[in-house]
Amino acid sequence: MKIIGKHLTVDMYGCGFDTLDNLEFVKSAMLTAVREANMTLLDFSYYKFEPQGLTALALLAESHMSIHTYPELGYAAVDVFTCGDHSRPDKAVAVLKSFLRPEKTKITNIRRGDFGSESDMKPKVKVSMTPLRRVRNTGARVLSFLSRAK
Amino acid sequence: MKIIGKHLTVDMYGCGFDTLDNLEFVKSAMLTAVREANMTLLDFSYYKFEPQGLTALALLAESHMSIHTYPELGYAAVDVFTCGDHSRPDKAVAVLKSFLRPEKTKITNIRRGDFGSESDMKPKVKVSMTPLRRVRNTGARVLSFLSRAK
Repeated sequence: MKIIGKHLTVDMYGCGFDTLDNLEFVKSAMLTAVREANMTLLDFSYYKFEPQGLTALALLAESHMSIHTYPELGYAAVDVFTCGDHSRPDKAVAVLKSFLRPEKTKITNIRRGDFGSESDMKPKVKVSMTPLRRVRNTGARVLSFLSRAK
Repeated sequence: MKIIGKHLTVDMYGCGFDTLDNLEFVKSAMLTAVREANMTLLDFSYYKFEPQGLTALALLAESHMSIHTYPELGYAAVDVFTCGDHSRPDKAVAVLKSFLRPEKTKITNIRRGDFGSESDMKPKVKVSMTPLRRVRNTGARVLSFLSRAK
């Protein structure tokens, strides 16, 4: 055994307000992700905040999955923490992305519990963007460059 | 606003078997940490695994706190995720350490949700060790050096 758990912290930007504020929708996204990623649900707790936002925590045989949403910012903070090799945390993230449809996603991969010879335990970060977001970002950079050039 | 949440992932090594396998004890450690760190508990779910190990998830007004224990390895994986400025995630970690008494702790500090001008959003890692563990580690290194020198 080398490491105990795989922990993906996922920041999703540019989701829809209504998507992130809909408890039933987010619950069904979580439960679908749990099922598709071959995880076993043991308990599920959630809370709807007022005026907006929600939290859902899935207690899994393989560890846990959590989501906190900020509809006013289009932002969701997702965690997928799994131990063992039979579940697919990456698949869970893909399912959640297909439900929440973020424009930009930042995934930090943290290996938890070092009991072996991993030479590099540093977290790894990966950012992905929809083409629309990329075009807008590039446009903003061009405008900013032109305004500086004046 | 610059970042949404502070997320500490904490790996604790060298805890006692009985400590990590005692659900009531770990629950009271979590609840004390929540209280001392000025957090608000909204829901609490937990599960005792057989033959050993447990998971506890605290749903907070400020986000969440979680623990997964592996008594057979003396290992606990703790997460403290908070948003807002009024709670003290570092205090929560200190309380949990005082209960679980790990020999070695690795804390990774992840800033979640970048909505501003943070220049460096890379996770920060901090490792701390009890003097006893440090002496043992140094001893092991000296022995390994001497055995190579033969």
